[in-house]
This record gives sequence, C-alpha cells and structure tokens, in this order.
Amino acid sequence: MLEQSSPLEKTPGRILEEVIEGLCDTASYERVYYRNWRDSPMPSLTILEEVMERLRAVLFPGFYGKSDVASETMRYHVGSNLDIAFRLLAKQIERGLCFFCTSDDRRDCPTCADRALNLTGRFVAGLLHIRRLLATDVQAAYQGDPAAKTTDEVIFCYPSIAALTYHRVAHLLHELGVPVIPRIIAETAHSRTGIDIHPGASIGEGFFIDHGTGTVVGETTIIGRNVRLYQGVTLGAKSFPKDAAGNPIKSLPRHPIVEDDVIVYSGATILGRVTIGKGAVVGGNVWVTSDVPAGARVVQGAARDICFEQGAGI
Amino acid sequence: MLEQSSPLEKTPGRILEEVIEGLCDTASYERVYYRNWRDSPMPSLTILEEVMERLRAVLFPGFYGKSDVASETMRYHVGSNLDIAFRLLAKQIERGLCFFCTSDDRRDCPTCADRALNLTGRFVAGLLHIRRLLATDVQAAYQGDPAAKTTDEVIFCYPSIAALTYHRVAHLLHELGVPVIPRIIAETAHSRTGIDIHPGASIGEGFFIDHGTGTVVGETTIIGRNVRLYQGVTLGAKSFPKDAAGNPIKSLPRHPIVEDDVIVYSGATILGRVTIGKGAVVGGNVWVTSDVPAGARVVQGAARDICFEQGAGI
Amino acid sequence: MLEQSSPLEKTPGRILEEVIEGLCDTASYERVYYRNWRDSPMPSLTILEEVMERLRAVLFPGFYGKSDVASETMRYHVGSNLDIAFRLLAKQIERGLCFFCTSDDRRDCPTCADRALNLTGRFVAGLLHIRRLLATDVQAAYQGDPAAKTTDEVIFCYPSIAALTYHRVAHLLHELGVPVIPRIIAETAHSRTGIDIHPGASIGEGFFIDHGTGTVVGETTIIGRNVRLYQGVTLGAKSFPKDAAGNPIKSLPRHPIVEDDVIVYSGATILGRVTIGKGAVVGGNVWVTSDVPAGARVVQGAARDICFEQGAGI
Amino acid sequence: MLEQSSPLEKTPGRILEEVIEGLCDTASYERVYYRNWRDSPMPSLTILEEVMERLRAVLFPGFYGKSDVASETMRYHVGSNLDIAFRLLAKQIERGLCFFCTSDDRRDCPTCADRALNLTGRFVAGLLHIRRLLATDVQAAYQGDPAAKTTDEVIFCYPSIAALTYHRVAHLLHELGVPVIPRIIAETAHSRTGIDIHPGASIGEGFFIDHGTGTVVGETTIIGRNVRLYQGVTLGAKSFPKDAAGNPIKSLPRHPIVEDDVIVYSGATILGRVTIGKGAVVGGNVWVTSDVPAGARVVQGAARDICFEQGAGI
Amino acid sequence: MLEQSSPLEKTPGRILEEVIEGLCDTASYERVYYRNWRDSPMPSLTILEEVMERLRAVLFPGFYGKSDVASETMRYHVGSNLDIAFRLLAKQIERGLCFFCTSDDRRDCPTCADRALNLTGRFVAGLLHIRRLLATDVQAAYQGDPAAKTTDEVIFCYPSIAALTYHRVAHLLHELGVPVIPRIIAETAHSRTGIDIHPGASIGEGFFIDHGTGTVVGETTIIGRNVRLYQGVTLGAKSFPKDAAGNPIKSLPRHPIVEDDVIVYSGATILGRVTIGKGAVVGGNVWVTSDVPAGARVVQGAARDICFEQGAGI
Amino acid sequence: MLEQSSPLEKTPGRILEEVIEGLCDTASYERVYYRNWRDSPMPSLTILEEVMERLRAVLFPGFYGKSDVASETMRYHVGSNLDIAFRLLAKQIERGLCFFCTSDDRRDCPTCADRALNLTGRFVAGLLHIRRLLATDVQAAYQGDPAAKTTDEVIFCYPSIAALTYHRVAHLLHELGVPVIPRIIAETAHSRTGIDIHPGASIGEGFFIDHGTGTVVGETTIIGRNVRLYQGVTLGAKSFPKDAAGNPIKSLPRHPIVEDDVIVYSGATILGRVTIGKGAVVGGNVWVTSDVPAGARVVQGAARDICFEQGAGI
Repeated sequence: MLEQSSPLEKTPGRILEEVIEGLCDTASYERVYYRNWRDSPMPSLTILEEVMERLRAVLFPGFYGKSDVASETMRYHVGSNLDIAFRLLAKQIERGLCFFCTSDDRRDCPTCADRALNLTGRFVAGLLHIRRLLATDVQAAYQGDPAAKTTDEVIFCYPSIAALTYHRVAHLLHELGVPVIPRIIAETAHSRTGIDIHPGASIGEGFFIDHGTGTVVGETTIIGRNVRLYQGVTLGAKSFPKDAAGNPIKSLPRHPIVEDDVIVYSGATILGRVTIGKGAVVGGNVWVTSDVPAGARVVQGAARDICFEQGAGI
Repeated sequence: MLEQSSPLEKTPGRILEEVIEGLCDTASYERVYYRNWRDSPMPSLTILEEVMERLRAVLFPGFYGKSDVASETMRYHVGSNLDIAFRLLAKQIERGLCFFCTSDDRRDCPTCADRALNLTGRFVAGLLHIRRLLATDVQAAYQGDPAAKTTDEVIFCYPSIAALTYHRVAHLLHELGVPVIPRIIAETAHSRTGIDIHPGASIGEGFFIDHGTGTVVGETTIIGRNVRLYQGVTLGAKSFPKDAAGNPIKSLPRHPIVEDDVIVYSGATILGRVTIGKGAVVGGNVWVTSDVPAGARVVQGAARDICFEQGAGI
Repeated sequence: MLEQSSPLEKTPGRILEEVIEGLCDTASYERVYYRNWRDSPMPSLTILEEVMERLRAVLFPGFYGKSDVASETMRYHVGSNLDIAFRLLAKQIERGLCFFCTSDDRRDCPTCADRALNLTGRFVAGLLHIRRLLATDVQAAYQGDPAAKTTDEVIFCYPSIAALTYHRVAHLLHELGVPVIPRIIAETAHSRTGIDIHPGASIGEGFFIDHGTGTVVGETTIIGRNVRLYQGVTLGAKSFPKDAAGNPIKSLPRHPIVEDDVIVYSGATILGRVTIGKGAVVGGNVWVTSDVPAGARVVQGAARDICFEQGAGI
Repeated sequence: MLEQSSPLEKTPGRILEEVIEGLCDTASYERVYYRNWRDSPMPSLTILEEVMERLRAVLFPGFYGKSDVASETMRYHVGSNLDIAFRLLAKQIERGLCFFCTSDDRRDCPTCADRALNLTGRFVAGLLHIRRLLATDVQAAYQGDPAAKTTDEVIFCYPSIAALTYHRVAHLLHELGVPVIPRIIAETAHSRTGIDIHPGASIGEGFFIDHGTGTVVGETTIIGRNVRLYQGVTLGAKSFPKDAAGNPIKSLPRHPIVEDDVIVYSGATILGRVTIGKGAVVGGNVWVTSDVPAGARVVQGAARDICFEQGAGI
Repeated sequence: MLEQSSPLEKTPGRILEEVIEGLCDTASYERVYYRNWRDSPMPSLTILEEVMERLRAVLFPGFYGKSDVASETMRYHVGSNLDIAFRLLAKQIERGLCFFCTSDDRRDCPTCADRALNLTGRFVAGLLHIRRLLATDVQAAYQGDPAAKTTDEVIFCYPSIAALTYHRVAHLLHELGVPVIPRIIAETAHSRTGIDIHPGASIGEGFFIDHGTGTVVGETTIIGRNVRLYQGVTLGAKSFPKDAAGNPIKSLPRHPIVEDDVIVYSGATILGRVTIGKGAVVGGNVWVTSDVPAGARVVQGAARDICFEQGAGI
Repeated sequence: MLEQSSPLEKTPGRILEEVIEGLCDTASYERVYYRNWRDSPMPSLTILEEVMERLRAVLFPGFYGKSDVASETMRYHVGSNLDIAFRLLAKQIERGLCFFCTSDDRRDCPTCADRALNLTGRFVAGLLHIRRLLATDVQAAYQGDPAAKTTDEVIFCYPSIAALTYHRVAHLLHELGVPVIPRIIAETAHSRTGIDIHPGASIGEGFFIDHGTGTVVGETTIIGRNVRLYQGVTLGAKSFPKDAAGNPIKSLPRHPIVEDDVIVYSGATILGRVTIGKGAVVGGNVWVTSDVPAGARVVQGAARDICFEQGAGI
C-alpha cells in the first residue's frame, strides 16, 4: 500500500494543474484520443437505445412502447415508431460510417448521408423477416422451458428473447456492412443479459438460450434451426493466425458450425471451425475441439468418474 | 454479405410504407401481439423498480432511500415507504392478474382489484420474516468471504445481498400465486447481478453466493440452511417430459435438493431432482447428475489428471 | 403454496400498521441498520458514476463526455472535467472514511475532510500512469481479438476496456487506503460487464479479458504483463483460515500469481496462492490448484476422453 | 424580527416530533386535507402536460412532437399521438369526475370511467373545429403584429398561440362539463404566458393577444371575431351578489361582451356585463364599466391632460 | 445591423481562444464573479424546490406529494416529508449564511452549521401557524371568487394559494434572519405566478390575490386581515433616500400599510408609507400616494370622464 | 353547455378514426403545418436552454454551472462551457437559417452550416462586451433597489438580470441577422420573468427593471444609459401602416426613444416613435403618446383628482 499518511508535497491545486498539463501532452494522449475528422459526433448509445425500444414496440406490438395497441390503431403506432426509428437510425449509421472514415475531405459527407439512408432503407425492408424469426424463437423458448407459463411471459420476461431481438437487428446491420453500430447494439444486449453474441454470427430460426449468462457466440459462428443453448456455453475460436505485424488476421472463419436441432448444455466449450452435426447433444462443461457427428451425445469423460474423497478443504 | 452497394429500387418512404403494411397484417403479428383484454396496461418495470427501492429502504433502514434515518424518525420513513410500496405493488399485482386473464367480461375487474389488495396484504405481512432471513444472509456473506470488511459493506455492496433481497420478495409473491410479477423481479436481479434464481426456488437462511455471475437456481430447487455457492454454479433440470402436444409438462419437481451446510464451488453443474446431502462439498467445474451423500467431497476426476503438454496452440 | 384464497383476517391498513411496528422494533432492525454516527450520508452511487464518466472523458479524450474535443480545446475539457471530478470524489472519499468511522466525536470531521482531500490529490497524481496502462490494454485487446477492427472500436465498445478503466481507478484508490469507494466502483463494473475484479488485485500492463462475463479475479491476485483471460475464468481462493470467533481472517494472500504472457481460456478455475509461470497456457474448463511451470500447456484430462454415447436424455 | 440568537429550548428532534403531532391533529388539517373517497388519485399535472404536448403535435403537425412529419407519414404521427392522448385524457377526466364526487359507494366508479370515455370521445370530435379556430388566430397574430416575420414564427414562438391552444382545449372540456381539468389546463397556460383566460370564456375566431402578460379574461366573457387585446387588459367582473351564507353566487353572467373587430389596448380595464360594440377601440389604461357603442374610440380623459411638473421625487 | 456578410478575419478557434483569455482576465470578471470563501456551494434552486414540494405535501395533506394520504397513515407521510425537508433546508440555510459570509476563517463553519440547525428548528416550529393562516387564505379565495367551485379546487389550482404558501414560508425565514433563501423562494413564486411579494412583507390572515399576474407587494408593506387584491396592483415605494455613496439606504419603512378588509382593484398603484384605512376600496388603475381614510371608496377621476372620439388610429 | 349526458352515437374508436382522417386532410392542415424543406429539424428549446445556461456560467463565473470556480481553474470551466455552447449554438443557428429557407435545393445546406459557423464566431466575439454591459446592469439594480443587500444577491436572484442576460444575448444574435433563435430566447425570458423585450430593442448600459412582470419593450425601441423601468411599463407602437395586402409593413421604427437617466414608473404606457428626453421621469399609469422634454416630470392628470365616494360596490 502507498504511504498514504505522509503529507502531500504539493497543494491539490498544483497537482491538478500538473496532471492536466501531463494529460494534454500529445505523447500522453495520442493512442487513446478519438480524432474527429469531420466534426461528426460519436454514435450515441442513448439514441441507439431509443431506436431499439421503438423497434421492439414495432416487432412485438402491445408488449412495449408508450401505448396500448388495439388492432384498429396498430397502424398508427407501428407507423410512427418505425418512421422515427428510421430517421434516428439513419443518423447513427451516418455517424458509424464517419467513425471509420479516414478521408479528410469534408465534401464527401453528403455521400455518407446518402449511403446511410440507403442502408437504413435496406435494413427496414428486413424487419418482417426478423419478426418471423423472433416468433419462432418465442415458440422455441416456450417449448424448451417447463417454467414458461405462456408465450406472452416469454416475450415480456425472457432474456433470450431480448438478446435475440438485439442480435437479429445487429446481424442484419452487420450483413449490410454498417460499421460499429451493430457492435454497440450487441454490447448493450451483452451488458443487460450476459449473453454475448457477435453481430456476425448467423443464427437460424427457433433459437433459444436458457438463462444465458456467460454464453458467448463468436463472429463467424453458423447456427442452424431449433438449436438450444444453456448458460455459460462458448462457441469460440481455437487460435488465430497473425500477420507479419503480429496483429491477428481479421474475419477468417474460425468458430463452430452448429447444425439443426443441436442442444448444448451449460458450461460446454466448443472451439474452432468444427461441425456439431444435426441433432447432436453436447453435455455440460464439455470441451470440444473437433467435429461431432450428427445425432451423437457427447458427455464429459469425468462425468462418470466423480470422486468422493475425504479431507479438509478442497 | 448483402449487396449493399446497389441502389435502392424503391424510395425509403415507399419501403417504409410497405413494411408498415406488412407489419400490420394479422398473419404477421398474431403470434407476437399482446391482446389486451380489459384495457389493463402491462406491468411496469419502472414502477416495480420503485417498489423494490422502497422495500430495500424498509428492510435495510439507513442504507437506502432518500434520507438519513435516526431511530426516532424511523417509523416515519419505514411507514411512508411501506405505505407507498403497498399501493404501487397492489396496482402491479392487479395488472399481473390481468396479464393472464382470459375472461372477456369486464365486470370481473373489481374482483381482480380486491384479489390484488388481499395478496398485497399477505405479502406485506411476510416482510418481517424476509428481513430476518436477509439478516442471516448478511452474516453468511461476512463469514464466507475474507474480503468482506464489515457487515455494512456486505449490505451496501454485495451482489449476493441484492440478488437475495429481490429473490426473497419474488419468492413470497410466487408462493402467494401472484403471476408474472415475481418473474419480472427475478429478471431484474438477473440482469444486474448475473445471478438467475427462479422465484419458485425455496432457499433457507444464511445463504451466500460469492461473485455470483452465471449462477442459476431452477424453479423447483430446494436449498437448506447455510449453503454457499460460487459463480457459475448451475442447479438445473436434467430433462423434462413433454405432453402429447410436444410442450413440456410444467412445474414438475426437476431441480436438486441441496441440504444444510453444503458448499458448491464455481462452475459446478448439478442437474435433476438429486439430493446433495448435508455438509457435502461439490468442487469446481464438476458435473453431478446423481445423489451425493452427506459429508462427501466431490471433485472432478480430471482434477487430478491435468496434463502438461507441449505444442503450438491449444 | 400459501392458502391465498382465504380472506384476510385483518384489513390491509391494520396489517400495514402491525408490520411497521414490527419493522421499527430494535430487535428486528439492529443487524440491518446503518447507524449514521456523524450525520454523514452514505456514499452516492449516482455521484460516483458521474466521477467515473468524467474520468473516462479525461482518460480517453474525444470518446466520452459532452463534447467534441479538438487538440486546441482539450485543455479546457480535460481541466474542467478533472476539476469537477476531483471535488466530487473528495466528498465521496470523505463519506467513505465516515462509513467505517466509529468515533462519536463530531469534531474530528474536519480531519476526515482534510484526509479526503489529501487522498484525492494522491489519486489524481496517478492518472497519467493509469492512462499509460490503459493504452497498453487497448493494444492488447486489438491484438488479441481478430474481431476487433480498430483500436477506436476497442476503446468505445469493449467491456474489457470498460472493466479495466474502472479497475485501475478502483485499484489506485484501494492502494491509497480509501475504504468502500473502490468496492462500489468495482461492483458497478461487475454489474455492467459481468467481470468481477476485486480492487485489491494487482494487474500489469497489456491485460485483456475477452467477452469476460463471469470472470472473477480475487483480492490478492497478482497478474503480470500481457496476460489474456477469457470469459468464466476464476482466479480464486482455495480455502481460508478462520479466527477463534469463526470469522475468516481477512486479507491474507490466497489468490494466484499469474506471470507475464499467460493465457487462460474460458471457464478455467485457478484456486489458491499458486503460480502460473511465464508464458503458460491454461485450457478451458480446467481446474488448477497447484503451480504451473513457465511455458507449460495445461489441458483438461477429460478433453481427450470425450464419449459419444447413445441414449435418451443427458 | 424574531429573537433568533437565543438558544433553542428544545432539540430539533423534539421540535420535529411535536410539530408532526400538531400537524396530524384533525383540528389542524381538516380544512386543508383532501379526502380521497374512492382511492382515486388527484389529477396529474405531468400527464395533462403530456396530453397538451401531444395535442399540440396533432394540431400543428411538424412544429411539435418527437419527429419530422412528412405528408406521407402524417397519418401515423397524428394517429398515434391522438390515440395516446385520448387514453391519457380519459383517465384524467375520470379523476376529475372523482375529484368532486361525494358518493361513498365505490361501485359507481365504473360509471365514472364510462362517463369519462364518453366525454373524451366528444372532446376529440371537436378537434377539427379547434384547429380551424387556431388557424384564424395564427393569421390574426401575423396581421396584427408588424414584428411577426412569418406565420411559422407565430406558431412556434408566440405566447398568444400557446395560450389560445390551451384555452380552446380547456374551453371545449368546460363546455362538456368536465370538472377541474379545464381549470388546471388554463392555469398551466397562465403560469407560462401570464395570460389568464378562464375556461368558461367564449372566444370567436381570429383572436390575438399581443405580449399578453397580465391580461385576464373572466369566466362568463363573450368575445366575437377578430378581436385584439394587448398586455394587462382586464375583462373582469364589477361586483357579485352573495347568498345567505355569505358565499358568492356562482356562475352568473358578470363579465363583458366584446363584439367583433374590437381592439383593447394595454392596461385597459373593462368590468361587468357591459357590451363593447362592434369595431370599438378601447385605449390603454382606460377604466370602463358601462357599454361602449359600436365604432366608438374610448380614450382616457387624463390622456390629454398630462402634466409636466417640476419637483423632486414623484 | 452588423456587417454579417463579410468573412471572419479569424478562425472560430482563434476567436474562441481570445474570448476565453479575455473572459478570464481579472479586470473583466471581478465584478461578476462569486468568490467562494469557504468552499461552500451556492444555494441550490433544485433542492429548495424539493423542500417547498415537501412542505406543500405537509401543509396540504392529500393534495400534493407521492402518495394518497389516509388519516391513519398521515403521520408517516407528514413525518417523513418533514424530516427530509428539515435536513435539506438546514443545509441550504447553511449555504445561505455562507453566501454573505466575509470571514476567511474556515474554522467558523461548524458554527454556521449549528446556527443553520437552530434556525431550521425555529422555522419548523412555525409551520402550524403557517397552516392556520393558509386555511384562512383558502376560505378567502373561495368567498372572493364566484368562479371557485370548492375549496379543494382553490387549494389545487389557484395561483394565490401557491404564491401565499411560498410567501408565508419565505416570510418566516426572513423574520428569523435567514439570508438569501427567502428571496430565492419568493422569486420562484414570482416566476410561476407573476405575483411578486417580497419576503419582508407582513400579511394577515384571509388574504386573496385574484389572477395576480403583475401584482407587487414591497419589502416593508404591512397588510391586515381579509384584504383582497387583484392583478397588476402595486404596493410600492415612492422614492428612497440615498447615502453619501449614492447607494439607497436599505430597509427603511417605505411601503403602504393596508388595514383590514381593504379591497384593491386591478392595476391600482399605491406608493409610499401611506395608510389605506380599514374597509377602504381602491378602484382599478388608480394612483394613490397619500392616506385613504377607513371605509372610503377611491376611484379614478378619469373613470367618469371617458371620451368617445372619432378618428383614425389611437 | 353541450348535451353531455346523451349517449355517443359512435364508438370512441370510430370517432378517433374519423378525426384522424379529418386532421390529415390537406385542407385542414395546410395553414398550420411546418413544411420541412431540407430535413432540418426545428430549433430545439431544450438545447437553447443549455446554451443559455452555459453562457450564464461563462458570464457570471461561480454563480452558475456545475462547479465551484477558483480563479486558478476558471480558464478550464469558462473554456469548456464556451466551447460546448459554441458548437451547440452553431447547430441551432443553422436550424434557424433553415427555418426560413425557401430554396428546395439541398446542396446549399453546407453553405448554411458555414454561415452558421461564421455567425456564431461573430457572436462569441461580442461576449466580453455583453459582460461589461451586464456588470453595469448589476450595479444599476443594486443602486436602484433599497431591498438589494449585495450585488451577489442581485446577480443570483433578480429577474431583471436574468431578463437582461437573455436579452443582451438575443439582441446580439438579432443584430447579426440570425433568424428565429433570438425570438425563442426572448420568449423564454418572457415566460420566466414576465418581462417581454423584443430582441430588436437597443438598450444602453446600466439598465434596471424592478419587479418587471408585464413590462414590454418593443422591437424598434432605443434606450439610453442608466434608465430604470418598473413593472407593467409598455414601450409600444401606436399604430402601424399596412401594405396593399392588408399585412402590416414590417420593421418600421415605431417604438419610443428613451434617453439617458429616464425613470418610468409602473403601469406607464408610452406609445409610438416619441422621445423621452434625458432625465425625464414618467409617473405610474400614465399614458404618453408624444415627446417628453428632457428633465420633465410627467404625472397622471387624474392623480391629483382622486374621488372619495360613497356607495355599494365599485
């Protein structure tokens, strides 16, 4: 522990001044400073939250949003939420494009605005498909959890549905090539649910993650239909090649392919571009780094070899 | 990746219009739409949060809430917080009752209001018992964690106490038959602490979960006194029978019974209606699917079989 | 389930009154009551959040805070954020000192205020060092994750950077002997990221935790340079001696020493004051309770012993 | 001034206790206590503000509200704002009905809810008429103030339009017999603009109050078309008869009738059920208590009799 | 108009820099800078607003505050609101004492804290008297306005009651010698209601100001019982002597004495230490600078001399 | 009153639908619809409020803003507040330019952004002058009001200083030709203080408005040095010529010129382009429509002709 009891040699004001000087020295800040090329602000987490709230109100009418929704008035509420979400999202996508923009020529910005509008249009066109997928996810959760009383409860309470709503939105944006924004959306879901699905992961219909905390689905994962995961499951990369500069080579396929009807129990770890065959079941806490044939049941060798031992402490 | 660079064939306005039409088509929304039978709004997460804040201020006077609490003025603060919490909770319970209500007859609603009031009365009557249990939980955390300096720090900072405050409230509501509300309360705690305890789980006094992230305690779990869990522990179901329609049969006992004085280390998975006998210790990352006798120490077979191997990459 | 259908024997008002009486009975509240000796309020989570927001804006100029930051105006923004953070933090440290204060003599309080000012001065003097460390952490994340596109994305989106910003601040306060405040800061990061690093843990430069949910780093852990952890890793204590009163003896070294360049994969559990030697790699889900030599690769024995079995249910 | 320097005879805690006792004595509070007969809360100023915000967004599309409004998407925004405003207002009207309700029979409440719904329906049906009137008010302000640049500026900035939007809404509710709510709406406008128009006042199209602060329009006032008032104008009552109990007899016609095309300059006071004839002009600071013929110009007698005098002080 | 079309000679960044330099030059700021002697922050308008909200909830139980108040639970709500208001107000009074404090000796501050506590205790002891006065003010408004339907409406809606609640609180604090705080409270009421009553003004029971906007009651005014004012009334000073330095001599009696049962109609101006005798009536827009005998009726000379003239424009 | 008791002929849903149809009919909305030419949002009152808050913190260091300001740290706080205010204001000015923009050519917008930046630069360059003027206004208030205890109290509490801070900012923006924004700023001050100063009014140093509610200063008014007004004073236009279309001709000089050292007492009305000569005093409630010579004292003729009359009611 530092010698806290000794008197300060300098006044707090003097320390403050010196530290401010130090922090404003180029050498100190250059690696942690965001250089704003075009006077474009950072993407806003608050506004992306509003976008997600409005999209949730649109996707699940009556469950979220500021209002009861009768079928007669649904058009108004869906329409206004979607129109506002569209405008807000287009602005954020524009900021996302600028975030990675290296050109210093300010006159290109109108191009970015047009690109953002185009991308948002394509995104919105995919919402019906997203809703169709989410409806199958709801059904999967209801059928996959004996504790679920109704599908209404699933939609309103289950972190799996929350995480998948965020993921299916983020994934479509990722597919369209929108930078950063999908990652921010994914991390919001991660922070709330403990479920970390990279926006790049491709996930089929009827997906369910029970409990979910600690489950990780990596960038190049491909998941089929009616797959069920539990908490603490990792679908990760085994290792990754680096380039000459020592940086990892980006975006290579390096995560598992999980085929239809697979179940992976809690704490299982599946690493690398392996294939878990259709209908396979992977037991809890298992460590898998090679292909699993269709229909197989994989359990921990040690699971049948538990030891009952005497002794003080573990 | 989608062909993002091609021009949009339709204007954004046209896309918007078509998507809104699509989303308002009955076939599209019928499985994800909340049909509000009685013009009763959804339970409000914000108000349930306020209820929990006021209950925390009531249960731990001086730690939470808007005010210092002297013993002379405690009655005022406890009284006003509890009176407000009572009214707010009664309203939410009424909404919870309506959430699952299938009758279309609006005249029943006064009955729901009366039932909600009755249930809230019963709930409040159990608060003294909840405080007694939480006081033992505080003591258990203080004694179970060498890093804990005082019980004050435990109450103010430990996620275990936060999670148990939410759980003991949710569990009592669950016992009283209140629908949905307990689940919402449990998921709030889950989101904040990463600890997922189903409101149905029955937990004895002196319970402590250290760190806690990723720990799951299932619906029909029964936990005795002075039990200690660590992070990433699963007390889950092994499998569940389905009915003729392919839906799981709800509410059957299917989670472990954990007797007094048991310790379960991080990452252990205990599945099914097995019994972990009094004083047993379950080691980290162990996978248990059968009974463990009282006093036994269960460790991973592999734990004594770690391999030191050479080679590139894992 | 309780007999919920029977009528209440007492009116809700009467129940309320009795419960309030009960809750204000000294015997009921004495173990869960914060006795405020000096009319000093509890530390405020909201204000500590503001302090952390301002420190993040100071440490990563341009990424956070209310404003774009040009290099010409950086001094103003860094200066005002740091000046305000200084004053707010000094007040919270004073509250922290009072939190554990047992003296009843109110005249000591000016001393506490002076001590708080002194401690805050020392803390601020360490910010340049914290930024230097965080810059190496950013680089480590960028190089350790093929999904990371730029270091900007790492700073803005990665939970590892968020958790380490909180930790490095909390750790310096802990080193200075500030009570409670470091713990509150650590728990805030824990709640948001699922990463639980005790403020006491000493962590070298270039640290990276990928995904992170469920990772736990204990109080007396010592971590070298360029260490990488994954989600669900535990660096914990094996057991702890108790004193005569049955309380654990506080603050003894009981967590691992992890040397430079070590990698620990997801779900691994390392317990006790063991040393993981320089450059060692610990595989996923492994359970380690003894030293690991430098350069070794530890994998689960069972990992090579996966069983493919037939049968219904797992 | 009280003798502030003498020491308190009692401790603050003792004073507090005694004052609380005193304030809870029936004799002390009975005349200032709201007896809530049916557990119906007070009307909410916050929600009525939201209702007014949404109605403003509906009445003046594109000027207010959360979104840009294109003519293609107007239906969505008008529809959702009006649907939400409808529900919120119906609830507030129900509270307003309960505010004056003296029956103790709780079973009547459904009747109140139905009445509130009926009244809200009638109110909404009048919105088109309100918009027509407000459009004429905008035109009147634009033509009546040389400082007005465009009608857009008038709608967005002029207190007269704000006050009339509130008034025309409040007046329709008043006409429908809704209790209290109109008064609350009127007082909100009064507080913001300094213009105090009683909801009972009947005001024709093309009305404009320039500046407006301090202008008062009484309950039974009747104002024709194209009338213009300035700040500080009073259209008030001269005196009012009392009943046997000494209370004023309520709701008798006692305020002026102001016919079409009248102008009343700043500070003029017109009292009693007098008629200001079509096209008359009432000069500033004039005091009028009898009829003014059509086309007349009334100026202060003293206005032509200003004195230039010597001397110190006024 | 400035020559706006010419190009800027300097970059915005350069202008900013120069202006900041200029604004931080001692000569520029010395007359508009608050020198904070003791590190005591300014009084907080937000907290004083909370104090007033809580006092209103205490004074008018059931009308304001977060909760319904039944007579059985009144003690809890009154008690907790008053306890919190007490602590908050004591802190603000301490800041108020520091606001005018010229001593540079920091060790006196505990004295200020004690003085603040003492003053707050005295203030609270006067609340019962304030409620008694306000109850008479409610009755006066009900009897003085034919538009008032019930006393409940008067309490909930009338700006006169709002202004008097603020004034009677501010006046008691002023009487106790509390600096600045009373003025801030008075200006809050002024901003909301347009009624400007100096905290020094002494006002008897049964006071009513109808409409109120623009009414001014000066510092040394003395008002008897059952007085009624209307909007735009001035009870002001005629002129004031200055000291040798040219500054006005502070706090001399210079405003009117208004005896019991007086009525003053809208726009009347009464200046100087004159006496308006018991039961006198002062007509609208009248200008009074000398005593008015008891029972007299004062009307504008011009009021009977209105001119009907022809001509274009006024 | 409408026939409220009859049953609704249509369901609320049907009414809603019809009214929405009606409100979306072009003929209904065309005169009250803001046509947004360039997808530029309306100016934001909230952001302009933040700009004014930051400018107040800059102009009166230590009185406003989030922080204590020591002279050593003043540069940081002034700098960051001004930098942020600059950016926010530039954006609002750009919106203001678009508000009146009639061109449909979107490519001009970058020009608007540049113009806005240029105008904001010029505005900021005038802040030192604004502070100098405000310092004289503070002195004038202190010397003009015997109730003012210190200049600190004047700055912190007096509506005159608040209104002049807003006005002097709005006036400079008006001088620079910024559209709408000055008006919005002026109306904010009007709403808060009841003082309505048009941004076009030119006001010399040492200006003071005591109490202020209801005082109006028109667009083309010119006020010299050391002028003092009281509440309810009007400096207005007498009449205004109209063009062929019946609209008033905009921006002609039509308000008074008030020379140095003039005092105008409460309720006085001065109309038209008349000159009130240096040192003149205008008495309360006086109506002036012609020049007043320097040094003259104008009082109401009627002021010496008050009538004491007998009789019932006024």
